[in-house]
Amino acid sequence: MTDTWLTTLITRTPQEGFELAITLSRRGVKYTQPDVSVLKSLRSEYANSADSLTAASQVIAINFQTIAAANGYWRK
Amino acid sequence: MTDTWLTTLITRTPQEGFELAITLSRRGVKYTQPDVSVLKSLRSEYANSADSLTAASQVIAINFQTIAAANGYWRK
Amino acid sequence: MTDTWLTTLITRTPQEGFELAITLSRRGVKYTQPDVSVLKSLRSEYANSADSLTAASQVIAINFQTIAAANGYWRK
Amino acid sequence: MTDTWLTTLITRTPQEGFELAITLSRRGVKYTQPDVSVLKSLRSEYANSADSLTAASQVIAINFQTIAAANGYWRK
Amino acid sequence: MTDTWLTTLITRTPQEGFELAITLSRRGVKYTQPDVSVLKSLRSEYANSADSLTAASQVIAINFQTIAAANGYWRK
Amino acid sequence: MTDTWLTTLITRTPQEGFELAITLSRRGVKYTQPDVSVLKSLRSEYANSADSLTAASQVIAINFQTIAAANGYWRK
Repeated sequence: MTDTWLTTLITRTPQEGFELAITLSRRGVKYTQPDVSVLKSLRSEYANSADSLTAASQVIAINFQTIAAANGYWRK
Repeated sequence: MTDTWLTTLITRTPQEGFELAITLSRRGVKYTQPDVSVLKSLRSEYANSADSLTAASQVIAINFQTIAAANGYWRK
Repeated sequence: MTDTWLTTLITRTPQEGFELAITLSRRGVKYTQPDVSVLKSLRSEYANSADSLTAASQVIAINFQTIAAANGYWRK
Repeated sequence: MTDTWLTTLITRTPQEGFELAITLSRRGVKYTQPDVSVLKSLRSEYANSADSLTAASQVIAINFQTIAAANGYWRK
Repeated sequence: MTDTWLTTLITRTPQEGFELAITLSRRGVKYTQPDVSVLKSLRSEYANSADSLTAASQVIAINFQTIAAANGYWRK
Repeated sequence: MTDTWLTTLITRTPQEGFELAITLSRRGVKYTQPDVSVLKSLRSEYANSADSLTAASQVIAINFQTIAAANGYWRK
């Protein structure tokens, strides 16, 4: 992957930080499986499984920890 | 998702922080599967499985780490 | 859940902190499945499975990280 | 459980800290399933499964993070 | 493994940090299974499973936490 | 286990730190299953499973967080 997609961890709001966490989580998948058509075919598998959705939410939570710390938790 | 749902990580009490952690955990699921009717149909799957409930509790615990740090652990 | 169950993360001893971590872990489950009769019926499922018990111990460990940090690790 | 088993997170060496992390991990299991005879019967299940052993090692790793931080990583 | 592959955790940008997190995650696998032909044969297994890809993304997220902290979150 | 195997978390380089993280991860397994012949017999099980290898890499990542923090991320 040669495109530039991550230049900063700083966001204006916690919500934007959360959405960046989602981007990181998806990129982690995409680096492992770059074929977008495969990723799309897998979507019905995990988007309809409670356990897969919980697992996805967990990866987001871990990435959000990083981003929240980077932003000093948007304290002010 | 264009609605604003997360403007601050600061809460008055640890319990409110824990409840915000639950909100984050659910939002992590909802960003991946936005269809509310699918989410409802999955509910009986995870709400009646001990392992699914433990996994849900784990995501909450991870998000609570972030929120507790943001609030200086409500030390005073 | 409208009852107040978490007013502070501060405990006198690490052991009380560990026990509070257990409370948080169980509350994480209970917010997701509030029906106590369902929770009781699931007990035999996870309490007799090595992997389920390890998973439960992991959630406790994550919550204990938070509580230990809040208490400055009970260093003095 | 009314016995006192955890009065400090401070240990003399990292190895003792690692062993305390094992104690915490086992206690997390034991609070959930206090019946020692059940725990013993489950032993053959997880002690002979690669994935169960990896999961056990993960809980130890999480608890070791807490204990290592408490001890300032035994830096001096 | 006697080759030198990790001399610093410092990267110029968060994206390079994320890519280093991927390297660490793959090295963690390779230390456990050094046989590259086995690793290649396993690729179709995990690259076509939603849950395996989520798990891979999670390991990357954990390693990215470490690298981001090492780099002071690339704040300036 | 009465042998001394962990006297410090400090390493000269990040790579040595990563390798120490592998040692901790394996020790976590070995404390739970000390029988080396059993561990060897389990090797083919996890070394040929993509998900088991990812899980192993995750434990290493968690232990590496601890060791990297202990070493101030080898920043200078």
